[in-house]
Amino acid sequence: MQKVIVIPDSFKGSMSSPEVADILAAAAMKYVKCDVIKIPIADGGEGSVDCILRAKGGTRRLATVHSPEGTLIEAAFGIVDGNTAVIEIAESSGLTKQTGFHALEASTYGFGELIRAALEIGCRNFFLCLGGSATTDCGCGMAAALGVNFYNADKETFIPTGGTMSQVEKIDLSHLDQRVRQSTFTVMSDVINPLYGPMGAAYVFAPQKGATDEEVKILDAGLVHIAGVIECDCHVDSHMNAAGAAGGTGYGCAAFLGAKIVSGIDGLLSLCRFDTLLQDCGLIVTGEGCLDGQTVMRKAPAGVAKIAKEFQKPVLAFSGCVTEDAKACHAAGIDAFFPIVRGAVSLEEAMQTDHAKQNMTDTVEQVFRMLRTFQNTK
Amino acid sequence: MQKVIVIPDSFKGSMSSPEVADILAAAAMKYVKCDVIKIPIADGGEGSVDCILRAKGGTRRLATVHSPEGTLIEAAFGIVDGNTAVIEIAESSGLTKQTGFHALEASTYGFGELIRAALEIGCRNFFLCLGGSATTDCGCGMAAALGVNFYNADKETFIPTGGTMSQVEKIDLSHLDQRVRQSTFTVMSDVINPLYGPMGAAYVFAPQKGATDEEVKILDAGLVHIAGVIECDCHVDSHMNAAGAAGGTGYGCAAFLGAKIVSGIDGLLSLCRFDTLLQDCGLIVTGEGCLDGQTVMRKAPAGVAKIAKEFQKPVLAFSGCVTEDAKACHAAGIDAFFPIVRGAVSLEEAMQTDHAKQNMTDTVEQVFRMLRTFQNTK
Repeated sequence: MQKVIVIPDSFKGSMSSPEVADILAAAAMKYVKCDVIKIPIADGGEGSVDCILRAKGGTRRLATVHSPEGTLIEAAFGIVDGNTAVIEIAESSGLTKQTGFHALEASTYGFGELIRAALEIGCRNFFLCLGGSATTDCGCGMAAALGVNFYNADKETFIPTGGTMSQVEKIDLSHLDQRVRQSTFTVMSDVINPLYGPMGAAYVFAPQKGATDEEVKILDAGLVHIAGVIECDCHVDSHMNAAGAAGGTGYGCAAFLGAKIVSGIDGLLSLCRFDTLLQDCGLIVTGEGCLDGQTVMRKAPAGVAKIAKEFQKPVLAFSGCVTEDAKACHAAGIDAFFPIVRGAVSLEEAMQTDHAKQNMTDTVEQVFRMLRTFQNTK
Repeated sequence: MQKVIVIPDSFKGSMSSPEVADILAAAAMKYVKCDVIKIPIADGGEGSVDCILRAKGGTRRLATVHSPEGTLIEAAFGIVDGNTAVIEIAESSGLTKQTGFHALEASTYGFGELIRAALEIGCRNFFLCLGGSATTDCGCGMAAALGVNFYNADKETFIPTGGTMSQVEKIDLSHLDQRVRQSTFTVMSDVINPLYGPMGAAYVFAPQKGATDEEVKILDAGLVHIAGVIECDCHVDSHMNAAGAAGGTGYGCAAFLGAKIVSGIDGLLSLCRFDTLLQDCGLIVTGEGCLDGQTVMRKAPAGVAKIAKEFQKPVLAFSGCVTEDAKACHAAGIDAFFPIVRGAVSLEEAMQTDHAKQNMTDTVEQVFRMLRTFQNTK
C-alpha cells in the first residue's frame, strides 16, 4: 500500500480533527508500510485556515481590519498554492472579535478588508469560510470594503448594517475592485439555510448573535428588502442554498463576488485537490464523532467517500459511536466503519478526551493490524 | 479465501457459543466467498457434548446409570468419528442430577457406568468433560463401576465415597474392564486445582456441592489418604495439574484409566483435529465474552491462536469488551481483536442477549466488509 490518506472530521467534544488525524496516521505507519497524507477536516468554521495550512502547507498572513463593532484588529488568513487565499469570516467579523453583541450594527466590513489585503498581495483564488460570524448584514459591509456603493432614498452612500439594510434603495457595482472580477471565489458553508423567512439567517442564527425577538424581525425584514434590491441591481437570485450563511454573507458573496457556494467538505476537497491525491492512494481513512443516518446526507465522511468511490478506492471510517442506521453509509461509499468504544462505558467517560484518544488509538491499531495481517498472508 | 473456521467461546451471560458461531458464520458467508466451518467452543463443562456433536456431527446415545445419590437416571453421551465417545460427568454425576446436596455420599459410579456403556458399543477413544460434578470421591465410584476393587481394613470390598475414602486400605486393578486398557482417555478440564490442600478439590469446590466446613475437612483428609493408597497401588503421582477437577476425578481418571489431562480448549481442538482443519484455511475467527490479560493464560481464544500460529494462519477475535492489557493477546497469536459495543452503553444493556447479538452482527459484518474490500482491491 503506497499511500494512505487520513482525512477525519473532529470528534466534537472529544478530539479536534488534527488530533484524530495524528492518531490515524501513527497507527497506519506503525502497522502498514505506507506514506500517510494527513488532511484534518476543517468544516468552514473557526480553525479552518489552520487546518488547511496544516494539511497543505502555506503561509499565514496578518492584516489590520475593522472588527464587527468598528475597532481595528489584527486578522489572519492563509495563502496556499501561491495565489490561493483561505479566509475565515470569524477572523475579522466573528462573534469572538467584539466586546459585546451588536446584532443590528455588526458589520462584515473587516471581512471585505481581509479579502482586499489578499488581493493586494496577488491572490486571485479565494476560499471563504463562513462559520462563526457576528453579523447579519447580507455581506454589505464586505461589499462596501471592496468598492460597492449603497445608496439610500436620499441618494447618499452609506454602509448598510443589519439594522439599516432596509434603507438601501440602489446598489452600484461600477466601483467594485477590478481584481475581484479577475478572481474566483468559493464559499464554504456547512449550513444550507435560506436568506430570510423562518429558516433564514435572522430567525435561525441572529438570536445566537444577541438579537432580541424584535431585532430578529427587523433583521429579517431588512434581508427581504435588500434581497429585492440586490436581485434588481446585481441580477443574482437570492433563493439559493446557504444564502443565509453568516447572516446573509452567503448570498452577499454570490451576488457581489460571483462566488460559488459549496459545502465545507466539498470546498476542502477541492482546495486540497483530493481527486489528484487519490490517484496513487491505497486507502482513505475518515472519521466523525457519530456515524448515523445523517452522515450520508451532508457530513464530511460521506463527502470524502463519494469522491473516493469515483476512483474505486477503499474507505474506512472511525467514530465515537455508530447507530443502526449508519449502515446507510455503505451506500455513500464507506466500505466499513468502526466505533472506538471498547466496552460498556458512560457517554461522559467515552467523550473524555484522554479516554477517547486511547480508545481511538486502540481501535485504529487493531484495524491496521488486521490490514497488515492480510497483506502478509497474500 | 477458501475456508474460514469460526471457533468462538460463549459470551457468558449474553450468548452461547453456538449462537456466536452462527453470527460469525453468517457474516463471513455474506461478505467473503468462502466455506465456513463452525466449532462453537465447549469448555468441558455442561453442554460440551452438544457443542461437539454440533461441530463434528455424530450421534447422541442414552444409557441408564446411577445418579450421584443412587437413583436410576437416563444419561446422554456423544459418539463421533465412529469409536470416539464424548462424555460429560455432569450428565451422570452432576449437581443437577440429584434432589439435594450429598457432599459426603455423592458418587461418580454413574460416570463409570456411562463409560462402560460406551465401551459396550465399541468406543475405544474417550473425551471426558469434568465440569459440573456433585462429587468429591476421587473418581472411586467411576473406578468401581469399571471393575476396580477397593478394600477396607477388614479386607472387605466397598465403593468409596467422599465420606469413606479414608477407609480404603488397598486397591486392586486386576478386575478392571479389559477394554479400558485398550482405550485412550483424554480428560478435558478448565480448572487446574491440585487434589487436596487449600487449593484442592475439597476446600475450593466442595462448598459449592453443599459441604459444611466440617465436611470439607473430612473430604480433604479423605483425598490425602486415598492419594497415598492410589500412589502406592497404581503408581501414579497425585501431584498433577487438575488432579482436583470434579472432586478428584481428574486424578482418578489419570490413575485408574491412564487418562491424559488437558485443558478444555486443547481437548476440543484435539477432538476436532483442528490442526488438520487448518491446512487449507484462510482465516480463523474466535471470540470470548471479555478479552483481557487473562486470555493469554488459559482462555479458549489463546488456545485456538496458538495452534493457528503454528500454521501461520491469521486469527481475528471478537469480544464483549477488551481491556487495555488485552494487547497481550497479540503475543498469543491473535492478530487483531474487536469489541462489539457500538457506542456508550451500560454493562447491563450491553449484555442483554438481543442487544449483544445485534452488536455482534453489526461489528462482525463491518470486519468482513473490510476484508472483502481489500480482497477486491488487490
